[in-house]
Amino acid sequence: MTVLPDAIAVVNVGLPMFAEAVRAQGGTVTHVDWRPPAGGDPDAVRALTRLYADPAIDVANAEVLRRLDTGVPFLTAVRRADEVVPGVGGRMLLHCGPAVDWEHACDPLRRSMRAATVAEGWAADVGEADGLLARGEVRLEPANHHDTVVPMASAIGPSAPVLVVDLTPDDGDEPVRAFAPINQGPGEVPWFGRDTDAAIARLRLLRDVAGPALATVLARSGPLDILAVAAQGIAMGDDLHMRTQAATNLLARTWLGHVAALPDDVRAPFADFLAGNHLFFLTPAMAAAKALTLWASRVPGSSIVTSMARNGTTFGIRLPGSDRWYTTAAPPVGDALYYSGLGPDDAAPDIGDSAVLELVGLGGPAAANSPAVAAFLGGSMADAAAATDAFRRICVGSSSRFTLPAARFAGTPIGVDLRKVVATGVTPKVNTGILAASSGQGQVGAGVATAPPACFVEALHALAG
Amino acid sequence: MTVLPDAIAVVNVGLPMFAEAVRAQGGTVTHVDWRPPAGGDPDAVRALTRLYADPAIDVANAEVLRRLDTGVPFLTAVRRADEVVPGVGGRMLLHCGPAVDWEHACDPLRRSMRAATVAEGWAADVGEADGLLARGEVRLEPANHHDTVVPMASAIGPSAPVLVVDLTPDDGDEPVRAFAPINQGPGEVPWFGRDTDAAIARLRLLRDVAGPALATVLARSGPLDILAVAAQGIAMGDDLHMRTQAATNLLARTWLGHVAALPDDVRAPFADFLAGNHLFFLTPAMAAAKALTLWASRVPGSSIVTSMARNGTTFGIRLPGSDRWYTTAAPPVGDALYYSGLGPDDAAPDIGDSAVLELVGLGGPAAANSPAVAAFLGGSMADAAAATDAFRRICVGSSSRFTLPAARFAGTPIGVDLRKVVATGVTPKVNTGILAASSGQGQVGAGVATAPPACFVEALHALAG
Repeated sequence: MTVLPDAIAVVNVGLPMFAEAVRAQGGTVTHVDWRPPAGGDPDAVRALTRLYADPAIDVANAEVLRRLDTGVPFLTAVRRADEVVPGVGGRMLLHCGPAVDWEHACDPLRRSMRAATVAEGWAADVGEADGLLARGEVRLEPANHHDTVVPMASAIGPSAPVLVVDLTPDDGDEPVRAFAPINQGPGEVPWFGRDTDAAIARLRLLRDVAGPALATVLARSGPLDILAVAAQGIAMGDDLHMRTQAATNLLARTWLGHVAALPDDVRAPFADFLAGNHLFFLTPAMAAAKALTLWASRVPGSSIVTSMARNGTTFGIRLPGSDRWYTTAAPPVGDALYYSGLGPDDAAPDIGDSAVLELVGLGGPAAANSPAVAAFLGGSMADAAAATDAFRRICVGSSSRFTLPAARFAGTPIGVDLRKVVATGVTPKVNTGILAASSGQGQVGAGVATAPPACFVEALHALAG
Repeated sequence: MTVLPDAIAVVNVGLPMFAEAVRAQGGTVTHVDWRPPAGGDPDAVRALTRLYADPAIDVANAEVLRRLDTGVPFLTAVRRADEVVPGVGGRMLLHCGPAVDWEHACDPLRRSMRAATVAEGWAADVGEADGLLARGEVRLEPANHHDTVVPMASAIGPSAPVLVVDLTPDDGDEPVRAFAPINQGPGEVPWFGRDTDAAIARLRLLRDVAGPALATVLARSGPLDILAVAAQGIAMGDDLHMRTQAATNLLARTWLGHVAALPDDVRAPFADFLAGNHLFFLTPAMAAAKALTLWASRVPGSSIVTSMARNGTTFGIRLPGSDRWYTTAAPPVGDALYYSGLGPDDAAPDIGDSAVLELVGLGGPAAANSPAVAAFLGGSMADAAAATDAFRRICVGSSSRFTLPAARFAGTPIGVDLRKVVATGVTPKVNTGILAASSGQGQVGAGVATAPPACFVEALHALAG
């Protein structure tokens, strides 16, 4: 015997219009906001089905997550790039993002390359530098191909001082070493796409003063546990990407005695440089993130992204166990605040290797505790929390060292899983600066760049085989 | 005609047992947690009724609030106390809290006085200093009577360097000047109740190195807007009482170039001192708070507390327009975390002038955004928010410069109103360190001291006349 129920409760999945129809008739309905994975793309769904069915990927991901979460990168030295960075020498510049030739390089990156070419002494002025570069007489290489990451529109030559960051794997595996330049600071600087005399002078200051001074400070202080400082910075409202002030200040106080002990010729200019550089900690954090992702990228068969970089022309990602880039056109930077009188038309596309931070639980994943980042995302701490939560949807785990007081001390999300990105359609959002498209005036604002989905879909198909 | 209602909803005010009785019978009840003002004390209720009926008090309070919220104290110089502090000279020590004689001074304060007596050169060692002090041959004066505030068990002599803080009233009134010592830092130091050789050496370091060095730094840097730095510190998780690290670090970076430019003889020891002193910003903040409350205390007839200080024996408050202290026995420090192996039996009562911070929106009122303070209050940010909310119940307004990201950028509560304290029975809770009762081992923990209600009730009656 079939008994009709007295009351019917409706659960509606997907299109809200059906739920509305039930409600309009006085019915009770629970609506579930569901969409087909990968926007319903059958090829992507097939690839996802295959990849989620493969337990080997979860095993590999667990190991990648463990490495990203537990590796301890130390800042151990500061040296000239050509003394320590593998493969660097001759007339060569290391630039941000995937490979790009002069013809396709964006204006801010070209200016930065010209400034570096002059600072290296290969050209007398930017006009001459332009000719050298246009004729292909300076070799251009992605920094990422040399275990190096550089922020914004950076291009560094062989004489540039680099931070040397060492990570000793706990499993007896080969040591990991990564590099990043000394942050050039705010103002009229090449990493912001400037090629003025002052910008070129900043590169010389780094080489002749900041590099040697920092090397001396570090020799006195001993190796620096970069991510221990970063964790304290997060508790003090840094996201360690858009805002690095608390970590920088902590370092400034910690190093004060060592700075005071520097030789007379470098002490004052180095102290003034550091005093005026609230962005200093950005590149140590980037080098540490690069060391973590280099270690993680030794694990084959994982679906966790271990490179993410932009050169202002293309946006690219890489997966562990492979040197292959998956690239798309660099996106514009959204959610932007511009300097007075400037707007989207004045802005170059997203640029720089700093997006490596978002792969290890810094930047966007740490937004929830950063009032400074909140200002770019709508103004409230809830907006900042939403940025962190978006990463939680596409990450495989949480940091055990970067905790967010504003989010009940939850760890920041780490390990961006390609599968989750494609399934949800949520791509990483990167807190970043915005450079002038072509005017050469440097930074014009800051905002959030949303990674383009196409390269993630391409990488997914490659991984699914 | 009287019509009985179909349904009765009950609102119960006060004792919850009546609400429970209604609920037990299946009735609907809204319970209001209400208590009689001032715990039902008829005398206090009469005084409150009188004081709340007097519109002149609200006018005076509005002006006090305006001064506490808008005054801009600058750190302008560092000088020997006897050169600048009114009435200081000869064999005199300025100590924390209300007046106290040697006989009634607590052990940590006695030790601090002995250390200062030796550092001043009045005695060859602490034994001799003890004799001098016991015989009354050193004059003891509350720092507060000399426009000065000193933290914890501090006692400072005429040669001690003091921070000079100046505030220019916007109404053409006489300038305000307040003082505080240079923070001695953590470790074996007199303000923590130590009188060892190392503690005495720290006082000499302040006088011979830190004072002159800081004076030179300040002469180069120009006057420091103390509360602008404090506001940034709060956004970075300082409460500026229990935790001052972010503000201190910010200052360290800002001053880096000036420290590097110091003469050879003081540069290294001063830099090491500052590098090792995460508590440095405590006393600039205290001196700024003292300047604000000094300006505010020129307004007669207000019910807002403008002095709150403890000497380890008594706890006292003062009201604007009067030098009269209302005192009670100093309370123990509760909600405490002790160093390993130590507990309440090892702890001296609440001590120090730093409670002036709680009168201007710093310390407890700023707890809501401080993960470090939360650790002392139960561990969660909700516990920290509750500490701020408790101040909101007894304060007349909110700061327009100290805003709390974790509390939707609300201003910290300022202006502790005696009337509200007595009416609610909620007294200020002060974030503070805990010193050894008698062992001379210095700091033994940290916690929260709850101000005793008796002195507030006494002040209320005095104000009601």
